[in-house]
Amino acid sequence: MFQEYNSSGKHMICDFKGIQNLDLLNNLDELKNVLKEVCKNNDFNILNEVEYKFHPIGLSILFLLSESHLSVHTFPEKNHMSFDIYTCRQYSDNAAYMEMFKFLSNKLQASLDSNYKIIDRYF
Amino acid sequence: MFQEYNSSGKHMICDFKGIQNLDLLNNLDELKNVLKEVCKNNDFNILNEVEYKFHPIGLSILFLLSESHLSVHTFPEKNHMSFDIYTCRQYSDNAAYMEMFKFLSNKLQASLDSNYKIIDRYF
Repeated sequence: MFQEYNSSGKHMICDFKGIQNLDLLNNLDELKNVLKEVCKNNDFNILNEVEYKFHPIGLSILFLLSESHLSVHTFPEKNHMSFDIYTCRQYSDNAAYMEMFKFLSNKLQASLDSNYKIIDRYF
Repeated sequence: MFQEYNSSGKHMICDFKGIQNLDLLNNLDELKNVLKEVCKNNDFNILNEVEYKFHPIGLSILFLLSESHLSVHTFPEKNHMSFDIYTCRQYSDNAAYMEMFKFLSNKLQASLDSNYKIIDRYF
């Protein structure tokens, strides 16, 4: 109970591997739309965003949320995308985060060795 | 060796607790200067940045780096700051990250129960 009382939220770190939908890893607008869908599905409020297109390939996108932040880095040459979401919202379990992982995994057509870690953070 | 070859870098998650230097948690420019010092000390290249001042207190700052990203969220009412740094740079050990933790801990005058986790990420 003490720890729950002091929760500062959950942080999920995902590494999506073997991605088949390479278009998504190089298309800034399309990828941002997918991330905005994640935010919409979870009622996350995007306060500000910043992005960078690496040359010749690769994207980085950061969303500053009312609830904390979301980050993405794509490595098309490795069929890889790293994704982080940290929110200070209080969840009773990991279900919402696992839904996000599944949603992104489907969009990316990622392989089954993609993985996630969910870290509970405390004040 | 296989895993080292496939390293996508190290991600450090820090929770600074019992912070005495509360001014730093509410002063956007001062806190950004401290974070820029972290980047300078480590030769991280800031490509873009975004920030938000919450009302009445609390700051969020995200730096998009050539090397990935850095994020900060302050909770002055809890004497707390969460800090993340993810870089795709290849380090042979955790020394540089532990130096960052110590540097920030000193600047914040954080308590000894502040903690960090260093997560190795892979393609």
